[in-house]
Amino acid sequence: METLSKNKIKWIRSLQRKKNRDIEQLFIVEGEKMVRELIEQHPDQIECVISTDTNFSFNGLSYHASEKSMEQISSLKTPNKLLAVVKIVDNKQIDAQFILALDDIQDPGNMGTILRIADWFGVDKIICSKNTVDIYNSKVVQASMGSIFRVPTEYCQLEDFLSKTELPIYGALLEGENIYTKTLERKGVIILGNEGNGISDSVIDLIQEAIHIPRFGQAESLNVAIAGSIILSEFSRR
Amino acid sequence: METLSKNKIKWIRSLQRKKNRDIEQLFIVEGEKMVRELIEQHPDQIECVISTDTNFSFNGLSYHASEKSMEQISSLKTPNKLLAVVKIVDNKQIDAQFILALDDIQDPGNMGTILRIADWFGVDKIICSKNTVDIYNSKVVQASMGSIFRVPTEYCQLEDFLSKTELPIYGALLEGENIYTKTLERKGVIILGNEGNGISDSVIDLIQEAIHIPRFGQAESLNVAIAGSIILSEFSRR
Repeated sequence: METLSKNKIKWIRSLQRKKNRDIEQLFIVEGEKMVRELIEQHPDQIECVISTDTNFSFNGLSYHASEKSMEQISSLKTPNKLLAVVKIVDNKQIDAQFILALDDIQDPGNMGTILRIADWFGVDKIICSKNTVDIYNSKVVQASMGSIFRVPTEYCQLEDFLSKTELPIYGALLEGENIYTKTLERKGVIILGNEGNGISDSVIDLIQEAIHIPRFGQAESLNVAIAGSIILSEFSRR
Repeated sequence: METLSKNKIKWIRSLQRKKNRDIEQLFIVEGEKMVRELIEQHPDQIECVISTDTNFSFNGLSYHASEKSMEQISSLKTPNKLLAVVKIVDNKQIDAQFILALDDIQDPGNMGTILRIADWFGVDKIICSKNTVDIYNSKVVQASMGSIFRVPTEYCQLEDFLSKTELPIYGALLEGENIYTKTLERKGVIILGNEGNGISDSVIDLIQEAIHIPRFGQAESLNVAIAGSIILSEFSRR
């Protein structure tokens, strides 16, 4: 197997920046479990695989890396044995009926968790505002536990999308209706807001059905991925 | 205001280790929001407050720290202006009816989030197995967003506690009953298992009511705090 050259190391490292991912239309996936799942389920999406194991091979698209080289290309404190460079595919889905819309979600861990809950609850598509964290950020990819390959996502001007959709638009607001008593079905756009500031004013104006999660204790708020999962659960339970 | 001495710096740093927290019965709280909340709501619990602001004072229990000293005592990458050393209080609650039992939760972020959702849903108490991450770990304190001061917790031999309780014991298992169709009320012990291994065999044996969260999509699993929040929501919604 070919050894990873200095140039390739430099090229892979460059993909840690969004600007370069956008130009190359490639991103990085780390970890044995996720890379092996990729090889099995989406082999066409793989540009190449880097392994510290000299016996590993994949369709002539694999390179061997020393542990030191792997450390250089990895974004993890403890690099894994396998790392893949993966093609970004356009997975826009046209007839989505059950949609999450993210209004400037910033934290990569939250974004990854939201991909995972969207995947669990069978959300058709995630629409992200332009300032939402990039889903191909390595921490998002990691936290998504593979759901990034299953949930279609699209970045767009959120107000534009919401103005045009014919689906009902839901958003969690303090003065909203109790989610436990409101009739909810798996059809519509559910907006989740920024971690610190919530849903922005221009997006609030477009909410048709304000909802809220009742509080039984004293915590001031819920994490956005937690709130999202409780809402998705309510939409799905009937 | 007195300046923080080298000895005090050493003493506060020592509280980053569980062993020393156990001996001193003290832990560290960082961040302006949480420290100000503490001063307002639980002033008796405060041993001392460290501030980079020379104008700050609190009952003769405050010290001034240079930014460099604050960096030395902080566990955060970007230290805050305020840090408090806080007394561990015994907040065991006797007549708890709605309990979360944690079977070896390891991740501090998950533990903090679980404290926060328990606080939101008005859980009376959290029972932790002996191998569950320490709630006074700085990352747990941070992620709990103040809920650590409101939710009573206790560490014990989990199997012992479960064998003795007269409350119904619930646990999420694959073969469990659908939480959306089962009648659930806010009375009982809900077990949440370890991130990688789930609920341990000896604890599974003590589950009386196996439940499960139905899946609508393809994600392999849910994060433990997410699963916990969906379950607590179902117990509370009626």
